[in-house]
Amino acid sequence: MRIGELSRRTGVPVPTIKYYVREGLLPPGELTSPNQASYGEAHERRLRLVRALLEVGGLPVAAIREVLAAIDDTERPVHKVLGAAAWAATRYGGEDAGAPEGGDGDGAADDAELKLARERVARLVEARGWRIDPGNRAAQALASALATLERVGHGGFVDLLDDYAEAAERVARADLDYTARRVAREDLVEAVVVGTVMGDAVFAALRRMAQVDASARLFPPE
Amino acid sequence: MRIGELSRRTGVPVPTIKYYVREGLLPPGELTSPNQASYGEAHERRLRLVRALLEVGGLPVAAIREVLAAIDDTERPVHKVLGAAAWAATRYGGEDAGAPEGGDGDGAADDAELKLARERVARLVEARGWRIDPGNRAAQALASALATLERVGHGGFVDLLDDYAEAAERVARADLDYTARRVAREDLVEAVVVGTVMGDAVFAALRRMAQVDASARLFPPE
Repeated sequence: MRIGELSRRTGVPVPTIKYYVREGLLPPGELTSPNQASYGEAHERRLRLVRALLEVGGLPVAAIREVLAAIDDTERPVHKVLGAAAWAATRYGGEDAGAPEGGDGDGAADDAELKLARERVARLVEARGWRIDPGNRAAQALASALATLERVGHGGFVDLLDDYAEAAERVARADLDYTARRVAREDLVEAVVVGTVMGDAVFAALRRMAQVDASARLFPPE
Repeated sequence: MRIGELSRRTGVPVPTIKYYVREGLLPPGELTSPNQASYGEAHERRLRLVRALLEVGGLPVAAIREVLAAIDDTERPVHKVLGAAAWAATRYGGEDAGAPEGGDGDGAADDAELKLARERVARLVEARGWRIDPGNRAAQALASALATLERVGHGGFVDLLDDYAEAAERVARADLDYTARRVAREDLVEAVVVGTVMGDAVFAALRRMAQVDASARLFPPE
């Protein structure tokens, strides 16, 4: 099909499709004449995936490129691709905050909080029997979040960890069951990537909905 | 204390503190002489909160300003402040994607998917007995995520909704219990804001950790 047809089918404007091709998010169409390219089903599917990662997942273009490379690299084992997806979908704090920074201002007190938080995370992993690498990026992100909570005077939040972990296990089991339905390798990997990224958006929305309900019960509006 | 001491205590560089004051995220210090301002405990606490929302919550400056205004507006009922926090912490898709857009390209087919997704969300809310407004932004975000999943060929993800909702209820109950420990209004509101924003980061990290564990069991590395 021509680019206009691809645009019509996916609802993605032609200039945006061209931008994705330039950025390497979408392979170029097959040239049928010097000024005409033809796109197939694979383009349509990839285009929808890019939109999903961008619009709902909120991933930056560079992270999407990384995830797509992992999907397309058939040499890479599935659990490594899951790792790449989790890495890409992990939000890096402050990078886009736009505030000028005057060097590394973290003092010795902050390091002490981070050390304690890492020990807390290690205890949690052990108690849960989770088979994860001690240097796991998500575990580091968790320790960093706990240290920050401590610094802002909300160290007590750590008491919720068991409830959170229990809920996370339930969600992760559902995620993996969904993944395991797939047979073809590309479908499997795509399901992992989409599920990881989109699952965050779905869970965050559900959590807010459930909070509104819980809050209405706890603080009834006048 | 002087700005240098505030910087030392919080690990936030002086130029960054000045930037926050200019952006209205931190009230200016009290002038003790034409070139000297004095900062108190309230500044220190607010500064740590801003860093937390920025670095771990990943909120843009405008959203932080909105959340702080809600905290400081003592006329606003608690459940409205929770609403403001949930709004601010909801990730808006695609705004920072940097892709040129050629107008609204969504066709009739997409509207049909969104309509079905909204009906699915309404059924979920009814089944759960959640007391939320039909126009609730989180419910809209959920419908939008489900419609996108359908468009990228992952409509089957909807089967996980019950597991996700169950887990979300558990987390929301823990969140509200944590909030309810607070007595003073400002503490209560701050706990809601911090918990809402930081809870996303904590849960996303735990979900990835639990996924790695579930994946290692399902796809054992060679």
